[in-house]
Amino acid sequence: MKSRIEKDPLIGIIGGVGPYAGLDFVRKIFANTKAVKDQDHINCLLISCPSVIPDRTEFLLSGNDEANENPAFGMFDSAQCLYKAGVLYTAVACNTAHSEKIFSPFLDMVKEKLPGLKVINMLETSASYIKELYPKIKKVGLLATKGTYNSKVYHEYFNKKDGFELIEPEESGRERVHDAIYSEDYGIKANSIDIKQKARDLLDNEINALISRGAEAVILGCTELPLAVTPQNYNILIIDPGLITVRKLILLSYPDKLLIE
Amino acid sequence: MKSRIEKDPLIGIIGGVGPYAGLDFVRKIFANTKAVKDQDHINCLLISCPSVIPDRTEFLLSGNDEANENPAFGMFDSAQCLYKAGVLYTAVACNTAHSEKIFSPFLDMVKEKLPGLKVINMLETSASYIKELYPKIKKVGLLATKGTYNSKVYHEYFNKKDGFELIEPEESGRERVHDAIYSEDYGIKANSIDIKQKARDLLDNEINALISRGAEAVILGCTELPLAVTPQNYNILIIDPGLITVRKLILLSYPDKLLIE
Repeated sequence: MKSRIEKDPLIGIIGGVGPYAGLDFVRKIFANTKAVKDQDHINCLLISCPSVIPDRTEFLLSGNDEANENPAFGMFDSAQCLYKAGVLYTAVACNTAHSEKIFSPFLDMVKEKLPGLKVINMLETSASYIKELYPKIKKVGLLATKGTYNSKVYHEYFNKKDGFELIEPEESGRERVHDAIYSEDYGIKANSIDIKQKARDLLDNEINALISRGAEAVILGCTELPLAVTPQNYNILIIDPGLITVRKLILLSYPDKLLIE
Repeated sequence: MKSRIEKDPLIGIIGGVGPYAGLDFVRKIFANTKAVKDQDHINCLLISCPSVIPDRTEFLLSGNDEANENPAFGMFDSAQCLYKAGVLYTAVACNTAHSEKIFSPFLDMVKEKLPGLKVINMLETSASYIKELYPKIKKVGLLATKGTYNSKVYHEYFNKKDGFELIEPEESGRERVHDAIYSEDYGIKANSIDIKQKARDLLDNEINALISRGAEAVILGCTELPLAVTPQNYNILIIDPGLITVRKLILLSYPDKLLIE
């Protein structure tokens, strides 16, 4: 007998990378669903098994050292676990995991072993979003952790071939963005319930510096950043890749349930 | 081949009832795990399929009307979905779902069809916690939504047979607790990121009223309440059943990972 759950599509989030980023993706699913009562919400699953997914930045920076296992394998195990439970649409809640060296073998394994599972690529979806809805935008600023900057993962998706020019803060600015996220005193991770003004100010300065260098859009390339940045404060496009990905997942699986922005 | 995930126990939370309560359970798992880096966190899954689980309070108050489906069936479907993914330990993130009329048929189905799945009963675990660690406590106050008060679900677990006397705020007090949770102006649900002082004050008054009537412990019988109540402000025991349940789940599955309080 078909269970009640199998009657509707099931979205699954591959989380754990890090754990709170996965949680934030699910929160975004709820917040972007047209729902008056509990029962209006859509079917979703979150898997958080971080012990099987090694650090993505470390892997990318380690070169071809065979001692370093590709995080793609643990991401695939997570996808397989969701697939067994009936998931049809998934995304990975980690920026750096989208680097070609990790995401491409992950997608190959999914295609071979989990037929029918649709994987939404967060960075590709964000690039397409800009190209389709804001075709005039070329110069795009990036706020991210040092790991994401070092991995150059955003350069793979926002490249010259597609007409993009990606700009980053200068080195001291990248340090300040990193501190706004990681400082144990005023950082977003340590104060996610009560964001400190200093974190907001640091990020505001870097966004304005990117704008003064000609940025026509700024990407919040770390799941913590949307908590401390108010897009309405800027007269350019501010991109939250997690939000765009979650909305794409809802649009594909429950088009009538997507909350109009 | 065994996947990397199957090597360790997998905890699954039955969420969706409501969606944010399920999310809060997972957040509590992360917050109660000894972890320095992402990879130290434990394996867990969240299922949120609220469309298959009818309103619990409505069902309980509807009498034996056969038109009302027992929420137990949708809870079982959720458990089955987690089971297929490999979950061994689970709990239901809803107070009212623990009423005997719902939880007992749910457990019967699990026992018959999902062998080996261990279900932690949130209310039973909370009652045992008090009995074992604070055996002198008899008079227990309850803060909850009107639905939970009306369902009398806490009376089933905190009863005279076990030496408990459960006390509730008087009717106007129950209204104020409900408002502290549901008011669109100052309620916790509408302001969960920035809890309003009025909600804190309303709950503080009701806790103190229960203490003045002799309560030796107060239960926060709604997942929103811990956000607005600071246990350290009171010289009696303040019980968060979700927290006790999550810690029990970790203790059973990853005893070495439980963060010491």
